[in-house]
Amino acid sequence: MHTAGQTITCKAAVCWGAGQDLVVEDIEVAPPQKGEVRVLILYTGICHTDEYTRSGKDSEGVFPVILGHEGGGVVESVGEGVTSVKPGDHVIPLYTAECRECKFCKSGKTNLCSSVRATQGQGLMPDGSRRFKCKGQDIYHFMGTSTFSQYTVLAEVSVVKINDKAPLEKACLLGCGITTAWGAVMKMPSPGVANSTVAVFGCGCIGLGVLNAARLAGASRLIAIDTNPQKDSWAKKFGGDNVEFINPLNLPQGKTITQHLIEITDGGLDYTFDATGNVQVMRSALEAAHKGWGVSTIIGVAPAGTEISTRPFQLVTGRTWRGTAFGGVKGRTELPGIVEDYLAGKMFVDEYVTHHTTLTDINKGFGYMHEGECIRCVVDMEMA
Amino acid sequence: MHTAGQTITCKAAVCWGAGQDLVVEDIEVAPPQKGEVRVLILYTGICHTDEYTRSGKDSEGVFPVILGHEGGGVVESVGEGVTSVKPGDHVIPLYTAECRECKFCKSGKTNLCSSVRATQGQGLMPDGSRRFKCKGQDIYHFMGTSTFSQYTVLAEVSVVKINDKAPLEKACLLGCGITTAWGAVMKMPSPGVANSTVAVFGCGCIGLGVLNAARLAGASRLIAIDTNPQKDSWAKKFGGDNVEFINPLNLPQGKTITQHLIEITDGGLDYTFDATGNVQVMRSALEAAHKGWGVSTIIGVAPAGTEISTRPFQLVTGRTWRGTAFGGVKGRTELPGIVEDYLAGKMFVDEYVTHHTTLTDINKGFGYMHEGECIRCVVDMEMA
Repeated sequence: MHTAGQTITCKAAVCWGAGQDLVVEDIEVAPPQKGEVRVLILYTGICHTDEYTRSGKDSEGVFPVILGHEGGGVVESVGEGVTSVKPGDHVIPLYTAECRECKFCKSGKTNLCSSVRATQGQGLMPDGSRRFKCKGQDIYHFMGTSTFSQYTVLAEVSVVKINDKAPLEKACLLGCGITTAWGAVMKMPSPGVANSTVAVFGCGCIGLGVLNAARLAGASRLIAIDTNPQKDSWAKKFGGDNVEFINPLNLPQGKTITQHLIEITDGGLDYTFDATGNVQVMRSALEAAHKGWGVSTIIGVAPAGTEISTRPFQLVTGRTWRGTAFGGVKGRTELPGIVEDYLAGKMFVDEYVTHHTTLTDINKGFGYMHEGECIRCVVDMEMA
Repeated sequence: MHTAGQTITCKAAVCWGAGQDLVVEDIEVAPPQKGEVRVLILYTGICHTDEYTRSGKDSEGVFPVILGHEGGGVVESVGEGVTSVKPGDHVIPLYTAECRECKFCKSGKTNLCSSVRATQGQGLMPDGSRRFKCKGQDIYHFMGTSTFSQYTVLAEVSVVKINDKAPLEKACLLGCGITTAWGAVMKMPSPGVANSTVAVFGCGCIGLGVLNAARLAGASRLIAIDTNPQKDSWAKKFGGDNVEFINPLNLPQGKTITQHLIEITDGGLDYTFDATGNVQVMRSALEAAHKGWGVSTIIGVAPAGTEISTRPFQLVTGRTWRGTAFGGVKGRTELPGIVEDYLAGKMFVDEYVTHHTTLTDINKGFGYMHEGECIRCVVDMEMA
């Protein structure tokens, strides 16, 4: 590679302002600095979090910005001191970094590394500067990843090498949604979902991932809930033929989804998951958990300013309310093993891909996301 | 005992209606039926839950009723088929029954036995009838215990034999508050409070019990929070000289208690406990728990109709919200061991008793409860 140490000019989808469509622009990508890695992004998924910031609903969003956080690529060059990846490595960018040195990483109790959190939240590299320029203007980074650019720069703590046998046009999806769902199930605190009853609210990428993981983990009963009747067959595809699909719009008269679930399960579920981001649904999921031991996990990201609520009696009578970010997965340590599980056929990945688009047509991909039949749209970043 | 099989006439404090003071009356107590136990109550504590129902704030309260659920006594006689206790045994009534046969008891995950729940909530014995009469009128039971009567009738599943070396004028308090706090700490899911930072909101009986248990369990740092400055010395008495006392009315300007706690603990507490019953405080306790792993436990009982709330982000970033009833303690299986811990000097019990009264003056005991310096008032049930 003769580009190392030089600024690279390439294409990227820039979001110039809140609520605006992305615009494919020629941008300049500076070389990686100390502790940084420059990556050629080959494929990227589009996730609701990208849309959330694009739409302007994210009050902490900064513009102009290069969005994208579900990517797969190849290391182009590395900055000073980088040892964990080298040019040519196949990698996945990590919006949840793992430094292995901060209080959080060392705790052994969480994947929420604090090393680059502050600057990442501001759209900056850890040294407080940026590596993207367009039309002479600095462009903000996003979630420490910015995978909607053909080249991006990542902190070393925000990238992980994976087996290069994994097809990046599929494995890119392990950078967010699928891994989040997988981890939410597989890293559940003891006793875990084996031989347990499980209900999932919402059958998008996350919900289907929960069904797929819970099936493999040995759940004794799986219930999927979605207002879109087409999700019945999707739920069975990911969770198995025994998945019971419930459309909350078609309940017995006068029943809430919570009441119905409690009735048909003799008291509620051992584990419930919210994969909708809707705070009312989060409440239903909690209250459908079994008295005495039910655990309800929030995976969805709720709109800014919204709050969850319940009567404290729901917790005092033995329900636990928890949440998870990136499934509790430590990206650098655990993602390579998840890729191996995928390669070994243990978990679905290819099956999530329903749509394809190109960088040129990336806005079409955002459109697909609002349609019920799109689970994941993968963007091919190569330009003709 | 020559009273077995006969109706006993004795004194009891009857609450004739919501919001009324108790009235000491002569009542008739029917013999125990199949699976029931009649107990001579010698001492009883007065707890906020008694006051909650007396005041009329409990929308499920029924009247006329004999309140009281923190008692100690001696078995007078037993009904057909009762095998776990016999006349003369020293016992503690259990408002959280343990049948060892229901789905809940068999789960191994909760102390919330369902065997007598429905009838107990209606103020009835398990067969749907009552054992108390006053002036020809049936009187309701309360929490399956009704310890404000010299004689009470309990389901066998709602009573436990304890070591008769334990002084009942102290051990009666193990029937609710102290055990609740003890269990909330000692039965915390793994990893538990050893070597962890702990904050307790509220320094009444429950909060002091949490401090006492957390100290014994080996917490590394203990913070006690109360708006009553006199609770500083109480907190240190129960939790040790190293307890840090914080009065939320005296915080640095512009700080909330949550912000202050997060600052002084470098990110929040490993474990927080609400022992106030105030839903705003419950929120503060959750949000003062450490990102990534903090666990917040609700022990207090909130007024009917009130709700807890927070941003889901608080859970998604790794906090767990849970609650506990009777500390998660299985009364018949575990309370005898807790009594042994008390007798062995491992835990405080005598130290909670700040006030005494008699059955005649039981209303004075309710008055003491509203004063800051009363932790527990014990009622001597014997009449002159």
